[in-house]
Amino acid sequence: MVKVGVIGGSGYTGGELLRILSIHPEVEIKWVTSRKYIGRRISDIHPNLRGFIDLKFTQLSLDNIDMIDVVFCCLPHTVSMNIVKKIYGKTRIIDLSADFRIRDPAVYEKYYVKHMCPELLDKAVYGLPEIYREQIRGAMLVANPGCNSTAIILSLYPLRKFLEKSFITIDIKEGSSASGRNPSLSNIHAERINTVRIYMPMEHRHLAEIRQVLGIENISMTAHAVGMARGIYATTYIFTENLPSEKDLWKIYREYYSKEYFIRIVNRKYPPYNLPDIKGVVYSNFCEIGFKVDKGNGRIIIFSAIDSLIKGAAGQAVQNMNIIFGIDEKTGLDYPGFYV
Amino acid sequence: MVKVGVIGGSGYTGGELLRILSIHPEVEIKWVTSRKYIGRRISDIHPNLRGFIDLKFTQLSLDNIDMIDVVFCCLPHTVSMNIVKKIYGKTRIIDLSADFRIRDPAVYEKYYVKHMCPELLDKAVYGLPEIYREQIRGAMLVANPGCNSTAIILSLYPLRKFLEKSFITIDIKEGSSASGRNPSLSNIHAERINTVRIYMPMEHRHLAEIRQVLGIENISMTAHAVGMARGIYATTYIFTENLPSEKDLWKIYREYYSKEYFIRIVNRKYPPYNLPDIKGVVYSNFCEIGFKVDKGNGRIIIFSAIDSLIKGAAGQAVQNMNIIFGIDEKTGLDYPGFYV
Amino acid sequence: MVKVGVIGGSGYTGGELLRILSIHPEVEIKWVTSRKYIGRRISDIHPNLRGFIDLKFTQLSLDNIDMIDVVFCCLPHTVSMNIVKKIYGKTRIIDLSADFRIRDPAVYEKYYVKHMCPELLDKAVYGLPEIYREQIRGAMLVANPGCNSTAIILSLYPLRKFLEKSFITIDIKEGSSASGRNPSLSNIHAERINTVRIYMPMEHRHLAEIRQVLGIENISMTAHAVGMARGIYATTYIFTENLPSEKDLWKIYREYYSKEYFIRIVNRKYPPYNLPDIKGVVYSNFCEIGFKVDKGNGRIIIFSAIDSLIKGAAGQAVQNMNIIFGIDEKTGLDYPGFYV
Amino acid sequence: MVKVGVIGGSGYTGGELLRILSIHPEVEIKWVTSRKYIGRRISDIHPNLRGFIDLKFTQLSLDNIDMIDVVFCCLPHTVSMNIVKKIYGKTRIIDLSADFRIRDPAVYEKYYVKHMCPELLDKAVYGLPEIYREQIRGAMLVANPGCNSTAIILSLYPLRKFLEKSFITIDIKEGSSASGRNPSLSNIHAERINTVRIYMPMEHRHLAEIRQVLGIENISMTAHAVGMARGIYATTYIFTENLPSEKDLWKIYREYYSKEYFIRIVNRKYPPYNLPDIKGVVYSNFCEIGFKVDKGNGRIIIFSAIDSLIKGAAGQAVQNMNIIFGIDEKTGLDYPGFYV
Repeated sequence: MVKVGVIGGSGYTGGELLRILSIHPEVEIKWVTSRKYIGRRISDIHPNLRGFIDLKFTQLSLDNIDMIDVVFCCLPHTVSMNIVKKIYGKTRIIDLSADFRIRDPAVYEKYYVKHMCPELLDKAVYGLPEIYREQIRGAMLVANPGCNSTAIILSLYPLRKFLEKSFITIDIKEGSSASGRNPSLSNIHAERINTVRIYMPMEHRHLAEIRQVLGIENISMTAHAVGMARGIYATTYIFTENLPSEKDLWKIYREYYSKEYFIRIVNRKYPPYNLPDIKGVVYSNFCEIGFKVDKGNGRIIIFSAIDSLIKGAAGQAVQNMNIIFGIDEKTGLDYPGFYV
Repeated sequence: MVKVGVIGGSGYTGGELLRILSIHPEVEIKWVTSRKYIGRRISDIHPNLRGFIDLKFTQLSLDNIDMIDVVFCCLPHTVSMNIVKKIYGKTRIIDLSADFRIRDPAVYEKYYVKHMCPELLDKAVYGLPEIYREQIRGAMLVANPGCNSTAIILSLYPLRKFLEKSFITIDIKEGSSASGRNPSLSNIHAERINTVRIYMPMEHRHLAEIRQVLGIENISMTAHAVGMARGIYATTYIFTENLPSEKDLWKIYREYYSKEYFIRIVNRKYPPYNLPDIKGVVYSNFCEIGFKVDKGNGRIIIFSAIDSLIKGAAGQAVQNMNIIFGIDEKTGLDYPGFYV
Repeated sequence: MVKVGVIGGSGYTGGELLRILSIHPEVEIKWVTSRKYIGRRISDIHPNLRGFIDLKFTQLSLDNIDMIDVVFCCLPHTVSMNIVKKIYGKTRIIDLSADFRIRDPAVYEKYYVKHMCPELLDKAVYGLPEIYREQIRGAMLVANPGCNSTAIILSLYPLRKFLEKSFITIDIKEGSSASGRNPSLSNIHAERINTVRIYMPMEHRHLAEIRQVLGIENISMTAHAVGMARGIYATTYIFTENLPSEKDLWKIYREYYSKEYFIRIVNRKYPPYNLPDIKGVVYSNFCEIGFKVDKGNGRIIIFSAIDSLIKGAAGQAVQNMNIIFGIDEKTGLDYPGFYV
Repeated sequence: MVKVGVIGGSGYTGGELLRILSIHPEVEIKWVTSRKYIGRRISDIHPNLRGFIDLKFTQLSLDNIDMIDVVFCCLPHTVSMNIVKKIYGKTRIIDLSADFRIRDPAVYEKYYVKHMCPELLDKAVYGLPEIYREQIRGAMLVANPGCNSTAIILSLYPLRKFLEKSFITIDIKEGSSASGRNPSLSNIHAERINTVRIYMPMEHRHLAEIRQVLGIENISMTAHAVGMARGIYATTYIFTENLPSEKDLWKIYREYYSKEYFIRIVNRKYPPYNLPDIKGVVYSNFCEIGFKVDKGNGRIIIFSAIDSLIKGAAGQAVQNMNIIFGIDEKTGLDYPGFYV
């Protein structure tokens, strides 16, 4: 049994992580911290977990690090590195913030703040199993990817050879839980329902990790908020002179991902189910990828859908944990989502 | 392994049932029928099930009854009895329609149509495990309860002694999937979102089974459509001279349900999570029950929430199957729902 | 032209009020205050009003009271009376808070806090035009009714003779804008969408005004939050020995409301449009009322739907203003809502 | 008073048109046809219009053409031309279908079917007032633009000089009412809520009219269905070597649109209201346009939001009618939308 601690377990990502861990057959949850809810039952804040986790939120104590095999850090960006700095080396760390995703401290500083422990950036492994599985195996510190980054990188990584001299722009549609459980004007129900609005017109922070992994700079992104609670839908437009056929793309993706359990290449015959859809992946750890070649316009269109809280956060974190501890990677994540 | 056939597997209830069965460790799905989609892959119609079920929809053939241990019948009311009539006795049947829920053919006729095989009504067991577990064990034909009925009966059954001379009215709030996957004016997205509307002002068909099980006639119900896709929320108002205290109710419910895994009595300290909530049960087989005693108004208020497709349909059907075949009742259903 | 000032104009009620006033042909908006947004353009906070109102939010100054004919006070309960106390007598006041709705300071204190200016309670007129039109005409201080109260009182007032010895319970379904524009855990989009939850199980504050106007005490209420942004749907259940026929109810309502422009008695032939529906009234000042008599259960069921921000708040406030200033009551409010 | 007939008035576009016409001070509605609802009261199908329109749906009769000054044709594409063919020349026609938007019958045939009356294509004026106001004035037949086309053309027309050698792709997010009031699998509430899905990956029919008006071929589009009921949000990405500054774009748009009442260039300081938003335009005839220049990526990003049923259909149709009859163009359309 892997002994687990969770730092910052009261938000949506923390709740999703606890849900997965609570039914993971090889995990024992030892403690869960939350500054806001110390002493409150976890299931009072995550009512769906009643009966599945019988603990109270505690204060973070470094003394408790010894009793665990791995800690999941679900703190906000820029807060997380303060904690990681103190516990690095004492236990395995899976950090769900952005603090260790970027190799270059100057790039991190450009998108966030000055890094507090740049010496750890090199030690961190980017936790995208479909690409970095081998490195994750031995990692002491895993930087769990951003939700948008996961959807985008998984769908574009196999196409790198088409990207280099192309014009590439990504249009993101994002559910509301991605903005967290802290109340603010922009995530009030009445503000967020029945609309589409720009969340980040350009230079979204996730571009830093996307560029780093894809190894290109010529990629841009615009993020929209839409009125669903979960899910990331990424539509990528690639204008390239070197236009492949849809058959070519099929071949590339199948070759690349044929053994990847959580990747589904979607190209069905009949609408409305012919292409990736949030409903195909929501409440699961799967990623749906699809594509069209728009010859007349010299355009490849790539579609990618994930559940933002699972494959985009907590599910992927558990996938990383499974890899680290030599457990079958699918363990605790091997169930379909819900269509309705 | 229990060998299973599913009749009518392309709707929302069928899809939910297939989802549960596809990851049930003791089940093998042998065939799934659908008149509309014969020859189409099941995962083309239920995209979330891709990788979990690798069958195509077939035509119903009575010859295939022999190869299975149990059939789930997910046909519409009044259609189902035609099929059940033909296969009764050849295999175990769990019927998710209303056709075998009512004992008295005259009552059935009043709410539906003339019954085609009234001789089977006596053989059917009402499939509410928390109440009829023993009878279900040996049943050849289980009549799986309606979604509203499940929410209501579970919350009122322990209170029967307060019901007899009381004025009782139930206010139902129902998600859109309860009206099925067949397109109609009343379930179009633009008609159904952002509203509350009366679905059935009085004499809802489910009252027939509710009255039968509770053993009272003085109970009424008004059903509202609200803009969520899943879930039944039942608020029951009981005006009684014989007003219990909240402590009394606690005692009654705990006594009655303390060993029932899927029932949660909810009475937390802090809002907004203090009372039953669709979010506490949705995507799970749990039923949340809560209560308040409004002394000043002589009123008991009972709250009950379930996922309409799971505890209100497919999950309960699998719970019944588990009982019939001596499998642990929780098998395949033992996971928390999703809060967000 | 009526010269108008608005105190507290940055919330949803304030925004709706400004929308109506901005196109009211007999109104000139002189100033709008907001503590939070002093100096910001009103259309920066209410983007829909761009081009219709060209003012900035200001700080409240009592010196500005002289220049106006009427002030709308859109402050929270318990804050409003502090201001009203200071300006009473200097201009007409339409107060949208609960602070002057209750005659008896002891009752006010029971549901809110100790009243700061109980001497004004007698001066205030309850601003429900369909009932108190005559008194509103000369009022210096109008207490604009609560949203739930409006839906309930309008639907029950003509039935008072059936209420006295009956068992009455009201089931409210409320949209999210009713909880205001201040972010809190319970109005986050991801918490509020896709659910039904109890907002107030009993003794909702609006009962105080409802009982006062209806002149009865035996009435109870349970309020639910549902996932729409606007609208109040009230379903009232009346168990009475003195059961009228539906024809009787038609007669009573028609007699009572035949000259009331904003009241619609709804009883159409074909579902899903046969009974009151949020979609029939939302974005308008209309109130839909319907009814069913459930003889078998000795029950009258009354349905009532309004737009919570218009007939339930800002629209009604403008209707009151029109009455005070001798303007045709419909002015600025005479348009249909939006069905989709 | 302009005497008006409406053909096909029972859908969402028809309903919206009737709402606008019913409160238009210079319009008299003479008749409204609907094959499906002949003899039914219009307000039975559009409950929000009760009290505002007191007619029943009738059958279309060519004899009734003489009594009107203008007919609005709200029939489906390919059906409309059958009717227009018969009535052309007898009255002014504003056709809301796609049948007369395309000049070239070969292009029409490519995207739709073989045209039945190609001789009329030349007579039709494309009804986008901000661009073709002069031609609309004298038109006998106005082809009202598509909803996506309106959002896109209005936002791109002033930028034509940047488009010619650029790579341009449009990402559309569309509300559900755009797929009409006829029930189908893809517009069921439970299928459409909580998701983002591809509606048309490429070669959307509206591209034909967009290319025709913009005078370029190098423009592509991908349309997504999102879970709101109304609204079109168009995000256009332009990769150009000839990158303007944001100041340049301001200047261009202000010059072009400074006198256009229904166009708002949006560039506010504070999020979440800094850029165009469905909530800024929904329930109104306004179009919000915004832009960002992403220098690092050589990209212009154009944002455009409209209400799909008003500026994208019925409101624009009435704007065209006003122009034809010399009425102030804003008449009947001059009110703000609703933010919540």
